[in-house]
Amino acid sequence: MWQLYQFPLCPFSRKVRLLLGEKGVGYDLVRERPWERRDEFVDMNPAAQVPVMVDAERGGVPLIDSMAICEYFEETVEKAQMISGTAANRAEIRRLVAWFDHQFHRDVVGPLLYERMEKRLVHAAAPDAKVLREAMKAAIAHLDYTDYLLGHHNWIAGSTMSLADLAAAAHISVADYLGGIDWKGHEETARWYSGMKSRPSFRPLLAERMELLTPPKHYDDVNF
Amino acid sequence: MWQLYQFPLCPFSRKVRLLLGEKGVGYDLVRERPWERRDEFVDMNPAAQVPVMVDAERGGVPLIDSMAICEYFEETVEKAQMISGTAANRAEIRRLVAWFDHQFHRDVVGPLLYERMEKRLVHAAAPDAKVLREAMKAAIAHLDYTDYLLGHHNWIAGSTMSLADLAAAAHISVADYLGGIDWKGHEETARWYSGMKSRPSFRPLLAERMELLTPPKHYDDVNF
Repeated sequence: MWQLYQFPLCPFSRKVRLLLGEKGVGYDLVRERPWERRDEFVDMNPAAQVPVMVDAERGGVPLIDSMAICEYFEETVEKAQMISGTAANRAEIRRLVAWFDHQFHRDVVGPLLYERMEKRLVHAAAPDAKVLREAMKAAIAHLDYTDYLLGHHNWIAGSTMSLADLAAAAHISVADYLGGIDWKGHEETARWYSGMKSRPSFRPLLAERMELLTPPKHYDDVNF
Repeated sequence: MWQLYQFPLCPFSRKVRLLLGEKGVGYDLVRERPWERRDEFVDMNPAAQVPVMVDAERGGVPLIDSMAICEYFEETVEKAQMISGTAANRAEIRRLVAWFDHQFHRDVVGPLLYERMEKRLVHAAAPDAKVLREAMKAAIAHLDYTDYLLGHHNWIAGSTMSLADLAAAAHISVADYLGGIDWKGHEETARWYSGMKSRPSFRPLLAERMELLTPPKHYDDVNF
């Protein structure tokens, strides 16, 4: 059985978990606080980041980096292909996964996680209101972009669901948990996200809680 | 003919150019200064980052994000496969590409580019000596890790050359151009890098210069 090292609010681990859920791959969760830089964990992954996946039956060599993990399961599990279509389609899927993992994370999820989670859990400090305001402003601009994408086709990267939808749902859900998303005025994205929330791959994630941090009431409601 | 939007010291564009060179794919260079956020460029890539590739003959839909571009050419051009082997081998190659693109870039190349290039070209300001010292200290620690990898096998990710070597050479070469690499005590990495420098795919990159910025004497010398 695969073991997945993660913590509940890690958007990169959520992306992987959504993919594993869609593909029907089983795994055990291992709770890791990467900011503690536990020796055994850093030995396994010198980058000291989650997600990491290990399967003792397969020699125990860890899979590291969320995109490398997704490509691995895309190559080895045929069910629910999430990087599919022509080479150009696949490039567009990967572009949008990278856009969420880098731009959306840098501007929105990263600052929210630092201010509302890490400062609380690790430093027992108050969040910086200015940084929070900037992150929420960036979230509005970025959801304007997802509205634009979803105004052109049913899913983030085209006419079928792909890894881009899973990456988008992973990042948006963490920002939403941390109170960073204003859903007013983002009808296209809200409609799409309601559909994502109702998927069996997403329900278990939405039921989990991070210690000390309570999400807004609408967070796990499909009809928000 | 493909057009590649880039600037000479962009490590992500260098990774793509090394791959195109190894695969024998021709392209024209288009000089882009992404920090100027030129309207036509942001329309093409909302993330306002290079590299971007466009081929008018193929409908002109841009390829965006360096890893998406590399996967595209890996899928469409059979020559010189750079993400090859078993699924586990391929995961290890992608892990190390991501390690250079994220960790090595965040700790070494990004700060050097900002302090020594962007501050000079855009802000006409002096670099922050403390930030430079930190970046060079991080480079030493990270080259200890590449020494470790290259002490175990001939190439960065295993027994054959892969995209991980191209990513490593791309990032290290930009750091080296900016005077950020101390080669003393990194014999394994220096030997491997000397081999990379002598490749026909790498020679044209090493001959290019960024305006106002002169690299150290050893920069384009194979026997440094």
